[in-house]
Amino acid sequence: MGKIIEISSLNNPLIKEIKGLYRKRNRWKKKTFIIEGIKIVNEALINNIELEYLVYSDSLLENQEGNELLNRIYNRDNIIKVTNKVFKEISDTENPQGILGVVRFNNNDFKDIEKLDKPSLLFLDEIQDPGNMGTIIRSGDAFNIDGIILGKGCVDPYNSKVIRSTMGSIFRLPIYMCEDILDCLQDFKDIGLDILATSLEGKPLYDKNLNNGFVCIIGNESRGVSKDILNMVQEEISIPMAGGAESLNAGVAASIIMYEVMKKRL
Amino acid sequence: MGKIIEISSLNNPLIKEIKGLYRKRNRWKKKTFIIEGIKIVNEALINNIELEYLVYSDSLLENQEGNELLNRIYNRDNIIKVTNKVFKEISDTENPQGILGVVRFNNNDFKDIEKLDKPSLLFLDEIQDPGNMGTIIRSGDAFNIDGIILGKGCVDPYNSKVIRSTMGSIFRLPIYMCEDILDCLQDFKDIGLDILATSLEGKPLYDKNLNNGFVCIIGNESRGVSKDILNMVQEEISIPMAGGAESLNAGVAASIIMYEVMKKRL
Repeated sequence: MGKIIEISSLNNPLIKEIKGLYRKRNRWKKKTFIIEGIKIVNEALINNIELEYLVYSDSLLENQEGNELLNRIYNRDNIIKVTNKVFKEISDTENPQGILGVVRFNNNDFKDIEKLDKPSLLFLDEIQDPGNMGTIIRSGDAFNIDGIILGKGCVDPYNSKVIRSTMGSIFRLPIYMCEDILDCLQDFKDIGLDILATSLEGKPLYDKNLNNGFVCIIGNESRGVSKDILNMVQEEISIPMAGGAESLNAGVAASIIMYEVMKKRL
Repeated sequence: MGKIIEISSLNNPLIKEIKGLYRKRNRWKKKTFIIEGIKIVNEALINNIELEYLVYSDSLLENQEGNELLNRIYNRDNIIKVTNKVFKEISDTENPQGILGVVRFNNNDFKDIEKLDKPSLLFLDEIQDPGNMGTIIRSGDAFNIDGIILGKGCVDPYNSKVIRSTMGSIFRLPIYMCEDILDCLQDFKDIGLDILATSLEGKPLYDKNLNNGFVCIIGNESRGVSKDILNMVQEEISIPMAGGAESLNAGVAASIIMYEVMKKRL
């Protein structure tokens, strides 16, 4: 059995450190992020994700799922028991379930993309809304694309709202961070990938052959794809719309593209 | 030219009334809701929506779009000019654009559904998240479905967060409120519509003939479709997923269904 550490003070340095992870700067310094709730902690365990700490309070024992989870983790190292008051301090939810984990960033190397055979990749250009980002990661996992590349100016994928809306897909879908967008896109071109972008005037999605390796760029929620990026694009594709709305939510647009890719490749 | 009313007091009864519309109970009593921002007010004007009031402050004049909008509304009745301070009080955003409208609920009558030829309808069962609700309305408009029916227990479609994420589609897509879900579904059955629901074990969406009139039920974000409703369902359909995620975001799932319906019917 692991040795469970108990903490009841709000001033404990570990508690302060965990609380600090709600700030992006601290997350990237420590290369760790917070997952909270029974469902996502279970997902982390199932996917053998490396956990720095698991923190729980007595609230976890209020229901059967919580008790089962505690049984599952009881023998691990780095289990920390805290009072409900301390848990509330490090929780991001109104009614905490009493379980929270600190998880290492996954390290996906850009070089790995070169090894993929005809990969299907999404490139997000300044996607700002945490809900959209989380939804895109969740759909990317559901439709089995090979990865998502985040350009600078996107919301941090390790933001707690993003993590919550990925529903665990953050542990399965490879995410790549791109420092210099035009550089990255040139590299993708050089290894033979098609560079696509969504636009209202593009070729209808379902007429497009998507069996080659490709990177499809999804633009910012209000401005769309930036101009300097559009210069790199080889073909524009569109999601046909028959009705009155002139555009779709970015998470929906990205999801429909990934759904079509899966259908075409099945 | 209309007579512009000027208000500078936070205690003005009209200001209090408008502020009250952020509460569901007041919205349903007055049958009006708030729209805020240049884009959505423009959409209301384009769609000839009945406006009770249009309220603006000097912030509106800070950019060209705002000036153009003010020129467009200047001759109308029921234009209210308020100080920036008053506007902040009735605004729901951090950086108000200085324009806000009070709009009448649209009155869609259930009887109208009977007149539709082979309608495509979505039925939302306890959709709770305002962003999901708004996204579904936006996609429903984009993919030209005939209407969305809201069961009891759904978030109020006139909630300001829902309105914002519809991006104006609230003015185009017919929305029907259903008091008694099982009663409504029985009525739909009686007029010959297929009652469908999404489930993980259902027939793949793209193999399903969707050219008949139908109502497709979208379930709650965490619990799915309620059991008593499932008893009324004639066929379950699924969105095939090849990857690790076990489900999709409710807004994405609904949007993909509507996208397939549009494709099949085009």
